[in-house]
Amino acid sequence: MSRTLHDVASGTLFGVALNYRGLLDQHLAAFQQAPYQKPPTKPVLFIKTPNTRNGHGAVVLHPQGERLQPGPALGVVIGQRASRVSLENAMAHVAGYVVVNEFSLPEDSYYRPAVKAKCRDGFCVLGPRLVPRDQIANPNQLSLKLSVNGELRQENSTANWVRDIPQLIAEISEFMTLHPGDVLITGTPEGRVDVLPGDTVEVEISGVGRLLSHIQAETHA
Amino acid sequence: MSRTLHDVASGTLFGVALNYRGLLDQHLAAFQQAPYQKPPTKPVLFIKTPNTRNGHGAVVLHPQGERLQPGPALGVVIGQRASRVSLENAMAHVAGYVVVNEFSLPEDSYYRPAVKAKCRDGFCVLGPRLVPRDQIANPNQLSLKLSVNGELRQENSTANWVRDIPQLIAEISEFMTLHPGDVLITGTPEGRVDVLPGDTVEVEISGVGRLLSHIQAETHA
Repeated sequence: MSRTLHDVASGTLFGVALNYRGLLDQHLAAFQQAPYQKPPTKPVLFIKTPNTRNGHGAVVLHPQGERLQPGPALGVVIGQRASRVSLENAMAHVAGYVVVNEFSLPEDSYYRPAVKAKCRDGFCVLGPRLVPRDQIANPNQLSLKLSVNGELRQENSTANWVRDIPQLIAEISEFMTLHPGDVLITGTPEGRVDVLPGDTVEVEISGVGRLLSHIQAETHA
Repeated sequence: MSRTLHDVASGTLFGVALNYRGLLDQHLAAFQQAPYQKPPTKPVLFIKTPNTRNGHGAVVLHPQGERLQPGPALGVVIGQRASRVSLENAMAHVAGYVVVNEFSLPEDSYYRPAVKAKCRDGFCVLGPRLVPRDQIANPNQLSLKLSVNGELRQENSTANWVRDIPQLIAEISEFMTLHPGDVLITGTPEGRVDVLPGDTVEVEISGVGRLLSHIQAETHA
């Protein structure tokens, strides 16, 4: 029986903030000040609510009077219930991978992303398909590319993650249970760009796929 | 056909931070400083993920080495898709009400609550039943009481909300679509108390019901 991406990745969408070294470095100075006093010691999570779900080739609405930024990220789809999982056993809980474009309004604080910036309708694009875990030999060596209208605008590698997949699963499952179908959005790199109505945006992750989105102006009824 | 609470309130659980005047007043000074510079101008939302769902009379686990605080709140269950809803039409989108106990670890920042503090397994208790909208004449005049082992420990009134239900629905639906089954947790008042393993906690909201939880120590396998 063939399962669609929606069947498999139907759970909670967990975003991981600040999971690229370059991005974390940019914000280290701010974290020394009030109210944080120090950089985060644990993964900083945010949620993409179900209304943000969107598919390959679909439209993403550009909110009037706001700036809109795509966020290329590798999505890790959980395949097995994970509670207090060790680093050694973590990968066994992964079903596979999916390309994610985690759209957001730009924010001045990266420590705790706001629902208002992250959770607009259609702001989490997933697809085009689930790539089973065993098809990706080393998820720590994947290139991420973001193109706008065919022009490369952002490029990075999962080699620059602050925490890799086993670390994320171990640290998150320490305080909450992950369920089959949940998706860990493993972070977007520094250098987010603005996109505009009419733009076509593509995220490509080596071995995982290419994910297209079309940006349109929001029109109020 | 009878519908259970779970059928009706099966959507996203949206928490509203700082929605009681006393609580907001306590934090106003901190908001004048970096990095906020000013108090929030819009509802500050957080998400209680699906793993937090818990029912009337069930056990809530007290995480080892942490402090645990119940959070009495009125839950508003959405009955109709709500996008860019006006103040005047907002209440028509409400199916009814439910008592919520929104458990949390205490946090030093109230502006953007952390997933780690808010989203432990079983940390959002809802019940015991959905009370239809027309059975509550004035949701702005409900008393909330929190008792621990039969002793009243926290008491407030929805008259002290910063934003009432129409304001919340209008302001939230301005930037995201609310769906039938989504629950707005309309905030917990100031004066949160600590609870300990062995405690029985009850939230009572006038006309809506009484919601029981039993606190147990977490035991690691």
